[in-house]
Amino acid sequence: MPVNYATPAPDQLHAVAGVRLGVTAAGIRKADRRDLTLIELAPGSTVAGVFTQNRFCAAPVHVCRAHLAGAQNEGGIRALVINTGVANAGTGEAGLAAANATCASVAMRMDIRADQVLPFSTGVIMEPLPVERIKAGLPAARTALKADGWFDAAHAIMTTDTVAKAASRRVVIGGRTVTVTGISKGAGMIKPNMATMLGFVATDAAVSGPMLERLVKEAADESFNCVTVDGDTSTNDSFVLIATGCGAARFDAVGAPGWDEFKTVVIAVARELAQAIARDGEGATKFIEIAVSGGRTREECKAVGYAIAHSPLVKTAFFASDPNLGRILGAIGNAGIGDLDVAKLKLWLASEGNEVLVAENGGRAASYSEEDGARIMKPAEIAVRVDLGRGSQGAKVWTCDFSYDYVKINADYRS
Amino acid sequence: MPVNYATPAPDQLHAVAGVRLGVTAAGIRKADRRDLTLIELAPGSTVAGVFTQNRFCAAPVHVCRAHLAGAQNEGGIRALVINTGVANAGTGEAGLAAANATCASVAMRMDIRADQVLPFSTGVIMEPLPVERIKAGLPAARTALKADGWFDAAHAIMTTDTVAKAASRRVVIGGRTVTVTGISKGAGMIKPNMATMLGFVATDAAVSGPMLERLVKEAADESFNCVTVDGDTSTNDSFVLIATGCGAARFDAVGAPGWDEFKTVVIAVARELAQAIARDGEGATKFIEIAVSGGRTREECKAVGYAIAHSPLVKTAFFASDPNLGRILGAIGNAGIGDLDVAKLKLWLASEGNEVLVAENGGRAASYSEEDGARIMKPAEIAVRVDLGRGSQGAKVWTCDFSYDYVKINADYRS
Repeated sequence: MPVNYATPAPDQLHAVAGVRLGVTAAGIRKADRRDLTLIELAPGSTVAGVFTQNRFCAAPVHVCRAHLAGAQNEGGIRALVINTGVANAGTGEAGLAAANATCASVAMRMDIRADQVLPFSTGVIMEPLPVERIKAGLPAARTALKADGWFDAAHAIMTTDTVAKAASRRVVIGGRTVTVTGISKGAGMIKPNMATMLGFVATDAAVSGPMLERLVKEAADESFNCVTVDGDTSTNDSFVLIATGCGAARFDAVGAPGWDEFKTVVIAVARELAQAIARDGEGATKFIEIAVSGGRTREECKAVGYAIAHSPLVKTAFFASDPNLGRILGAIGNAGIGDLDVAKLKLWLASEGNEVLVAENGGRAASYSEEDGARIMKPAEIAVRVDLGRGSQGAKVWTCDFSYDYVKINADYRS
Repeated sequence: MPVNYATPAPDQLHAVAGVRLGVTAAGIRKADRRDLTLIELAPGSTVAGVFTQNRFCAAPVHVCRAHLAGAQNEGGIRALVINTGVANAGTGEAGLAAANATCASVAMRMDIRADQVLPFSTGVIMEPLPVERIKAGLPAARTALKADGWFDAAHAIMTTDTVAKAASRRVVIGGRTVTVTGISKGAGMIKPNMATMLGFVATDAAVSGPMLERLVKEAADESFNCVTVDGDTSTNDSFVLIATGCGAARFDAVGAPGWDEFKTVVIAVARELAQAIARDGEGATKFIEIAVSGGRTREECKAVGYAIAHSPLVKTAFFASDPNLGRILGAIGNAGIGDLDVAKLKLWLASEGNEVLVAENGGRAASYSEEDGARIMKPAEIAVRVDLGRGSQGAKVWTCDFSYDYVKINADYRS
């Protein structure tokens, strides 16, 4: 069960003009499970993506990168195809051929070129992609295409997720209505490095290719790249931003009127999707925000945030609601900041509007009491705040606790 | 229960001339538990240590470093004092004062200077050290001093350990008998960075200070620095090597006859102690050796070993005996080697004398079958072998699996 997260109702997910989505059960790994999603984009859409830095990145990630690099000037990307069940990662040359065959099959059915298709896969690593089943499922997915298919698609891309993840905003910027809607999936193997397992966000605004490239990186850096469940960067992480241009708003330059406002909305949607992944982290019972300030660089703040978020000892203490908070100091000390002066560091914990100072001057704060710590640790949402006392930069990381169920899910998955 | 490890019997732990050990129950955190250990060294002993790189390193680690740096020329180190229950880490100035007060108390009772004492603490972080209880316990520990006290000391330094850890060798080098005996503790918060939670090895050979300095680093690098349980580098990691010179063997220069043989014995003892920690890792049901070869540097091989050893997904798959081996590829891809060519990498798994090739050419090996994988994953000891195919360097890492009991132990510990 996710921590304080529920999938928005279908009517809360605004359709994005120029985007249609269709899903089907293609029997890729299990029968009677929606596992194939097709997304059709209007001509003229711009698309940008960020992908995993894992060296064993999946075949579809290779193909996405190539298609995004090449297709923009020749009609652009017109379709996305997403399968669950098999990740098509660690599959060598055969995996690349399978991803390309999937694109070719989509292209043939939609009368576009194969390099106008972006393929995505998620599931078990090192098993061959059953291309024939995908091909056989495509006609049904195509028939199912509809503008209000976001809710179905959010469900069809799930793997170990316990809830479908979607977010949507409709705002007026400079007198013009802009819609931004997105979906994501992911619960384990989550420590995005550029993007997360799968995230798709579309807007009906028109955004130039170079601007979309910048925006997708910035949005990923403020959302998916701040989330971790278990520190394992997936082989298939992909975050794609789509601008169909079918709406009234146009952004042709970074300084364009309303751009900052638009950017804020896109980042808000991406962040909601990213946080939903931590809230639905495998076995999660707590959602934890870690805010690090006072660093010399954003990178070192993030390193401290991740050191806390990845520590199994910290995560199990959160699970137990045990204020064994020395473990957080231990984790901070391991973040790789060689000249960190622990005497200048401060650590707070907060929940439900209450905040307590836990540590300062290299040790436990004089005002801190076990009772305060225990009270703050109880609720399902907890904020950790660290001031490194050495600069003006900051960063946030979102994560979840580490429970019996994480082990159960990952010892059982696949078997 | 540890994986294939049992504490040696008391008579298997050879006394080291020049070393006496005494333990007592000082009531530091719990009543009726041996929690205080005193080790007395003969005059003329040389001592060298390596300590945690955690920036929140414990007060006793600061004091050890200072005493080791200063005392060698003025009579040398003459006593070690070790308490469990409270780590005296994250305790600021008060913690330093407590560690110094402990040394002063030992010094007064043993008629030596305070800077001839090395203090060690292990237990809960960020709680004050109850110095008065330690002081009160010292007379009993001193009365208990005996040459064959290694077995008792191995028990008295345990925290979440399920077995006491000790190793001993008596060999003849160049016609002279050399004894090497050591103890260690640690089961969680284990990813030593210079050394592990607590390891003490003594020899009756005479070894010059500079040579012992080199040897302790080399031995740590080949033993404690190759072990991980949960990736959390402790605040208190300390590995100390003692040479009393009370035996017949003398090593005054690196080229001295028998030096290499002696070094091999010391490293073997350190490695046995280090592996015992992984075998007794919190909740461990499997012991896993990860051997990485074909790297450009030893460091990148170690990074790959740790990426595998720290992945919760890999560790839970080992717990389940589930050959979900794509997770190992995913972990290797996250090791931070930016120009790793996955097509050149090979992955094998082995247990009980059988080895199977799992992956090559960027994907699953053609000869691999699920049945082979499942058979290899079953036993309690498993070897993972990776050839990076890009150089001639190698490294080994030892770890354990990740079970329900890890969560249980760490959610319950302290409460």
